[in-house]
Amino acid sequence: MKSNQKTIGILGGGQLARMMALKAHQLGMNCSIMSSSKDDPAAQVTSSWYRGDVKVLADVKKFIKSIDVLTFESEFASLDILTFLDEQKEVEVHPSPKLMMTLQDRLSQKQLLDKYKIPTSPFGQLEKIEDLDKLKLKKHLVFKARKDGYDGKGTYILKKINDPKFHEFFQKQKAGVIWENFIPFKRELAIILVRNKKGDIVFLPLVESYQEEYRCLWVKGPVKHEKLNSLKRKLKKLVEGEKYVGVIAFELFDDGKKLLVNEVAPRVHNTGHYSQDALTEGQFSLHLNAVLNNKLFSPKSLHKAFAMYNLIGSSEVQASWRKINDCHLHWYGKKKNYAGRKMGHLNAIGSTPNQALNKLKKMRKDIKI
Amino acid sequence: MKSNQKTIGILGGGQLARMMALKAHQLGMNCSIMSSSKDDPAAQVTSSWYRGDVKVLADVKKFIKSIDVLTFESEFASLDILTFLDEQKEVEVHPSPKLMMTLQDRLSQKQLLDKYKIPTSPFGQLEKIEDLDKLKLKKHLVFKARKDGYDGKGTYILKKINDPKFHEFFQKQKAGVIWENFIPFKRELAIILVRNKKGDIVFLPLVESYQEEYRCLWVKGPVKHEKLNSLKRKLKKLVEGEKYVGVIAFELFDDGKKLLVNEVAPRVHNTGHYSQDALTEGQFSLHLNAVLNNKLFSPKSLHKAFAMYNLIGSSEVQASWRKINDCHLHWYGKKKNYAGRKMGHLNAIGSTPNQALNKLKKMRKDIKI
Repeated sequence: MKSNQKTIGILGGGQLARMMALKAHQLGMNCSIMSSSKDDPAAQVTSSWYRGDVKVLADVKKFIKSIDVLTFESEFASLDILTFLDEQKEVEVHPSPKLMMTLQDRLSQKQLLDKYKIPTSPFGQLEKIEDLDKLKLKKHLVFKARKDGYDGKGTYILKKINDPKFHEFFQKQKAGVIWENFIPFKRELAIILVRNKKGDIVFLPLVESYQEEYRCLWVKGPVKHEKLNSLKRKLKKLVEGEKYVGVIAFELFDDGKKLLVNEVAPRVHNTGHYSQDALTEGQFSLHLNAVLNNKLFSPKSLHKAFAMYNLIGSSEVQASWRKINDCHLHWYGKKKNYAGRKMGHLNAIGSTPNQALNKLKKMRKDIKI
Repeated sequence: MKSNQKTIGILGGGQLARMMALKAHQLGMNCSIMSSSKDDPAAQVTSSWYRGDVKVLADVKKFIKSIDVLTFESEFASLDILTFLDEQKEVEVHPSPKLMMTLQDRLSQKQLLDKYKIPTSPFGQLEKIEDLDKLKLKKHLVFKARKDGYDGKGTYILKKINDPKFHEFFQKQKAGVIWENFIPFKRELAIILVRNKKGDIVFLPLVESYQEEYRCLWVKGPVKHEKLNSLKRKLKKLVEGEKYVGVIAFELFDDGKKLLVNEVAPRVHNTGHYSQDALTEGQFSLHLNAVLNNKLFSPKSLHKAFAMYNLIGSSEVQASWRKINDCHLHWYGKKKNYAGRKMGHLNAIGSTPNQALNKLKKMRKDIKI
């Protein structure tokens, strides 16, 4: 049954879907979740949950009968599902399945950046392991699986040509591998923009992000960079040229001079979580409004500076804390805690990015997880 | 099944329960809802919903088997249920059923205020209509039903002794009637405090509230009053003396000199909704932490000033708006819109209370409801 207000369907039931659903509730939007278990983070926060496997076409076909607009929590939708979604006319799909295909393959993702002259590290495809000899190993090379890599999975930094472990890595990557020049970066930054169908485009502030073991640990901002305006113009051309709809996140390297795009995520993103509490419009409401083609408002900072700190599991003990004060806790409700798992995050504001971050680092010590 | 984290059960499925449940999700607290329809505002936002009538003892008995701590969305729990809850040992109940009984009867509520020397308008009980002649009608008198009155329902302002309509009103009030001197107030204010079992007590800022047709239309703050500290000391004694646990809201008259308590609500309250976006700790998280006996932190203002504006239905058309910007929308997801129904609210911050309020008044014009 479709009411006269559009229903957004989200494929996936993790923390990103959970925070989208919670924001949809606040804003009075209709939102349904499809995921495989009733215990999933997003399944817990709505009565409008459908059991289904996001990798199973038949489940997706059934799910879209109950919704009007489909969006994704993850960039890793499978090809058969994206192909079906691209061809059907039953529901709108944002971002478009074709763009999802382009962006989920690191080779075509890099080629898309090239098309819009967006600075990125030099790259190429490694089709056969024998071609390795043709690559000049001036600096280290970074090899990335073309598909399904995240949080360091599917990434290999090659420091010498004769590395037997690399052969093992290469054989495992069924969808192929690209190489990139290793960028000796000074810091990692990130920027998010949002576009709706009618063409409104808004940017969130530039932020610094810090990874530990390839996983985002914290974010602070806003930060400045002299190449920011030039980059923003090019990113704007990309989303306009490709008619992208929704939130899109760009992870960046600052090598001391240039701003290089490292990775692109066609979805709400960990580096944008701070926006829930620091801006007049957060990434979750912006994504929802974008896929509904509602007017987008430029988010303003509510405070001078902000920070976000991920709460990452270190063991299987149940999380506990005595006090969380002067900051905002966002907990994901995951049934199991294990090492490396993102269990929640903290947001804080401050007079400077560091002051906000230090507040969170101190708070983090009080949390057992 | 009880997990090793306590589950809070909320009796009721309206907007107050909805906003408590949403906050519980954010904070990773277990929270269950009991209400009569799956369409209820709070039922929509959780997978942990139980069908039951909050007025039916058998339903409450069944509900508490799945929870650890019970709390209320409304002060109007029926006597048989409060009596049962007071006697059972299966779950904790906050606020205590005995206090709920005292506060839901306007006569014992006023007597409780007297006990702690909290200023309130002179009052008495009108047992028989014939006793009306004994009352000195110097000023107008306000008559209030002892039970179940809200938003002006159950209130009668008597301006002359021989008023036939008053007889009609009096007959209708099955639980009896109290009289109060009419207070020619300059403005209405409100203050919320919160206490947990271990005795932490925190106050939210003093705010001004404005009612239209007995319904809260807006709130702005913070405001100052020279009698505030004296009042706070007395309110603190009340919650300590009565071992009150949870949020408690006091609606106040400012007559130009004194601060008089008009009404007491033993629950999260419309005059505290601004706290969701203006303070480091909002009333919903404070209430949840209080009933779980977690440490309570004094909420700090994130901004200089704030305002809240209720979105009240004026007809049965579906609500619509073109844009909501630079403020926070909280929509309740009620399936039907009708005149006088609270459908949602807007929160804003500003450099002064009036600046925040004016922003919302302007925004309100763009919303059809």
